[in-house]
Amino acid sequence: MTTDRLYLYDTTLRDGAQTQGVQFTTAEKIRIAQVLDALGVDYIEGGWPGANPTDSEFFEAAPKTRATMAAFGMTKRSGRSAQNDDVLAAVLNAGTPAVTLVGKSHEFHVRTALGIPLDENLDNIRQSFAHVTAQGREAMFDAEHFFDGYKSDPSYALTCLHAAFTEGARWIVLCDTNGGTLPGEVARTVERVIASGIPGDRLGIHTHDDTGHAVANSLAAVEAGARQIQGTLNGLGERCGNANLVTLIPTLLLKEPFASRLQTGVTEEALKGLLKASRTLDDILNRVPAKQAPYVGGAAFAHKAGLHASAIAKDPTTYEHINPAAVGNARIIPMSNQAGQSNLRSRLREAGIEVELSDPRLPRILDAVKERESRGYAYDTAQASFELLARRELSLLPRFFDVERYRVISERRRNAKGQIVTVSEAVVTVEIGRKRITSFHENHHSPEEGDTGPVHALSKALAADLGILQDFIADMRLADFAVRIVGSGTEAVTRVVIDSEDGQGRQWTTVGVSGNIIDASFDALVDAITWKLVRDGAPVPA
Amino acid sequence: MTTDRLYLYDTTLRDGAQTQGVQFTTAEKIRIAQVLDALGVDYIEGGWPGANPTDSEFFEAAPKTRATMAAFGMTKRSGRSAQNDDVLAAVLNAGTPAVTLVGKSHEFHVRTALGIPLDENLDNIRQSFAHVTAQGREAMFDAEHFFDGYKSDPSYALTCLHAAFTEGARWIVLCDTNGGTLPGEVARTVERVIASGIPGDRLGIHTHDDTGHAVANSLAAVEAGARQIQGTLNGLGERCGNANLVTLIPTLLLKEPFASRLQTGVTEEALKGLLKASRTLDDILNRVPAKQAPYVGGAAFAHKAGLHASAIAKDPTTYEHINPAAVGNARIIPMSNQAGQSNLRSRLREAGIEVELSDPRLPRILDAVKERESRGYAYDTAQASFELLARRELSLLPRFFDVERYRVISERRRNAKGQIVTVSEAVVTVEIGRKRITSFHENHHSPEEGDTGPVHALSKALAADLGILQDFIADMRLADFAVRIVGSGTEAVTRVVIDSEDGQGRQWTTVGVSGNIIDASFDALVDAITWKLVRDGAPVPA
Repeated sequence: MTTDRLYLYDTTLRDGAQTQGVQFTTAEKIRIAQVLDALGVDYIEGGWPGANPTDSEFFEAAPKTRATMAAFGMTKRSGRSAQNDDVLAAVLNAGTPAVTLVGKSHEFHVRTALGIPLDENLDNIRQSFAHVTAQGREAMFDAEHFFDGYKSDPSYALTCLHAAFTEGARWIVLCDTNGGTLPGEVARTVERVIASGIPGDRLGIHTHDDTGHAVANSLAAVEAGARQIQGTLNGLGERCGNANLVTLIPTLLLKEPFASRLQTGVTEEALKGLLKASRTLDDILNRVPAKQAPYVGGAAFAHKAGLHASAIAKDPTTYEHINPAAVGNARIIPMSNQAGQSNLRSRLREAGIEVELSDPRLPRILDAVKERESRGYAYDTAQASFELLARRELSLLPRFFDVERYRVISERRRNAKGQIVTVSEAVVTVEIGRKRITSFHENHHSPEEGDTGPVHALSKALAADLGILQDFIADMRLADFAVRIVGSGTEAVTRVVIDSEDGQGRQWTTVGVSGNIIDASFDALVDAITWKLVRDGAPVPA
Repeated sequence: MTTDRLYLYDTTLRDGAQTQGVQFTTAEKIRIAQVLDALGVDYIEGGWPGANPTDSEFFEAAPKTRATMAAFGMTKRSGRSAQNDDVLAAVLNAGTPAVTLVGKSHEFHVRTALGIPLDENLDNIRQSFAHVTAQGREAMFDAEHFFDGYKSDPSYALTCLHAAFTEGARWIVLCDTNGGTLPGEVARTVERVIASGIPGDRLGIHTHDDTGHAVANSLAAVEAGARQIQGTLNGLGERCGNANLVTLIPTLLLKEPFASRLQTGVTEEALKGLLKASRTLDDILNRVPAKQAPYVGGAAFAHKAGLHASAIAKDPTTYEHINPAAVGNARIIPMSNQAGQSNLRSRLREAGIEVELSDPRLPRILDAVKERESRGYAYDTAQASFELLARRELSLLPRFFDVERYRVISERRRNAKGQIVTVSEAVVTVEIGRKRITSFHENHHSPEEGDTGPVHALSKALAADLGILQDFIADMRLADFAVRIVGSGTEAVTRVVIDSEDGQGRQWTTVGVSGNIIDASFDALVDAITWKLVRDGAPVPA
């Protein structure tokens, strides 16, 4: 079977930057370009030079990449030549080997948004591409609203494509700008474009996720013959986002009818870095990674149902569509009251604890989990706390330290200058071996200043001095904490879930439950520290 | 054109409960069932009676619904009759009109997971459905791993379906259990099942989102002839989740080739409640609504690109694939824009405040909202706090009381008997007119006792004595509070959202933001009390 080359075109830095709440700095854009290049995309669209300062700056500072760098702009405006359009000139002046120009292909938009005759738009397209290709650049035409345009006036829409094609555009990219088109229509339309004389290996697809079909539409276009896909990391983009390359890439590499027929620039080795690439973008954006994201989500290979977990133990392919390691992900067998002993044993095995199926402590652990979950604990989320609970039942939990007492004060008052200030202070007394250590931490600030409050003060005080254990927790950091009220009325309790991370890039989750939010937080903090001490083999203080 | 009836089967309460981190209480399940019923789904799968206490409890307490209630279970086990299988008996004992049994249809699973001969599995299917239909129940067969099974051994997979069909199963549901199948294969396989003699109006589709195709696969099956779709609200579910009904429903009602050919139980009016249904589930789970979700996401109709926003002003259909109001959503355009102000005016109108379009205070309110939202406030949730902010800008907010200072202490220590106790105490000083009042509240308890902690102590102290205003807040109650960390690292702040209710059955939501959780809670509490005083027309103390 012959394999076709499929090209991946990333627009995270341009269309992705249209995401509500997203605003990249130049340094962030450079870092993302490096991530994309390592992943193996073919084109990186860096922005619209001239449209805003960050985009212009990026092209001046752009890193050397294996991928072809593309600048984005629009076809020349009416009433001036391509040579004399300063907007187009700014795009070309970025000096990128590839230049992508968006232009109209939907007669309604030519009339309504541009307000010019249909022929004039064709002329703008022709002149723009003649100008770009004359400069020796690789030119691409993003045919805006192509699918809607084709539905409304197929002949005009096709004529727009051919205007750019005839002038030497390397790629004609069919855009579903409003994201309203479904896969069947995408496939039929791409087939007709090919029948009109533009071969599939000159056609790209650009979709949006407004009906949840950005990925499906991209693949429908590829099945119909298109050979370039435009998308973004994590599906960033205007409104509901663009086609998610993080979902598309493993599907193209691992699934039929694509894997054996198409070749991309992404190697098997680079695919293993997919999860990390996705997380890097989340880090840059300060976003919590989407747990249920295909392939790379934290729950993508989490098997909660008891029946699933027991089959997975026999053969992972029973409930996994791919090997999670192929995309850098890992299997998770969470604990919950729906889970049986087989979940429990495989979860213990992951923590390095082997327990026989006949061990009477297994049902004891399960009972403890169930009892505590009925009080509001959530052990399928808080795997680290689960592991500590199991170790306690199995007498495998060293006694690193005991907390004697703690006290936290939060106060809002006026200071000597009459300004409102908030103070959080925490005192913690721990016994470590035969030593008793009391630590103190205070936050003092006006409401406008960054204050992370009583839980933060408590965490700082607790981690301030653990004597000989201190070195083991020095690289720990509280990454996130989430609070939820469980139950209601007099039954209500507070559940605090804490995510921690360390210098080795490990992340772990602990849980605390109490009617008192400070108490719950404290217990989750103590679990977080204890788990780290266990994992790093800290000594038991004498 | 004849229209076919398409049936929607919701499994939020069963497969949705398999989502990592999700654990519904019975009260929450009842509330979700009511939301689903109002939306107009045809079947509500309530859980697996006997598998865990919550599921059994739900069926005893299940609300009266227009939708058909279904209990989930599995086909009878080997080595006993259907009559004598206690697991199956527990399912039937729930007494639901519909019963859905999952069973194997993939020879690999029969051999590997069950470890029984292929014929024995067929016999288990037959006997199970004979038993269920003999009881007069509407029976459904969830054919687990059907698509993988069909690929591996088409003849056996089809025989499994026909075993249930012949015994009177109303619906044969084709499950892509591992979520690895792509739309083309789904369509071809459904066509072959229909060719084997099971008509499309007896076929359902159950998909998972492991490649991001749960919605596309469901629609591919419907295009091929299937007439029941199983899915969940917000795409909850095992691993990457099930098919998202919130995405599917508007596509089925508003998009071709579905809208004119199919009819569902969801009315145009109910569709307008779609966003609210989605948000209600998020609220129950204390989840941040997915901003980029198709149709209902906060950004789904947000037009950030300048070119888009200006075209939208000329004609919204230029960059919108549907009218956002059809699903209860709203267009978001840059704050400075004319239409942004008209949104604001309608929200104020809801609060009984009429403001002229030309009022210069309108842009001031918008700026204040924007500035505070950038600091972490969430005024789309906290309508009461939004109203207070607007009243402040409009000089329509009476000065009821001022908080001079507060102090909260949380302490864990040993009491005289050596028991661990936790103490929360709060002192609040307020100025009401010319009067200064200091109130105090203390919780004292062991960790096992119900303690609602520092926020509760603060709320009690604050509401203990507001002088002449006390009568107005006497029937107020803190119904729920949710805490979320917004941003991360040094930028992180805590957002507290408080739901309050009063004796008149009113509910209102307020928000507070601070680095300090106690501070944020306090501000939300003050807003909650102030809103109540405004609404009940309390006098301004002299």
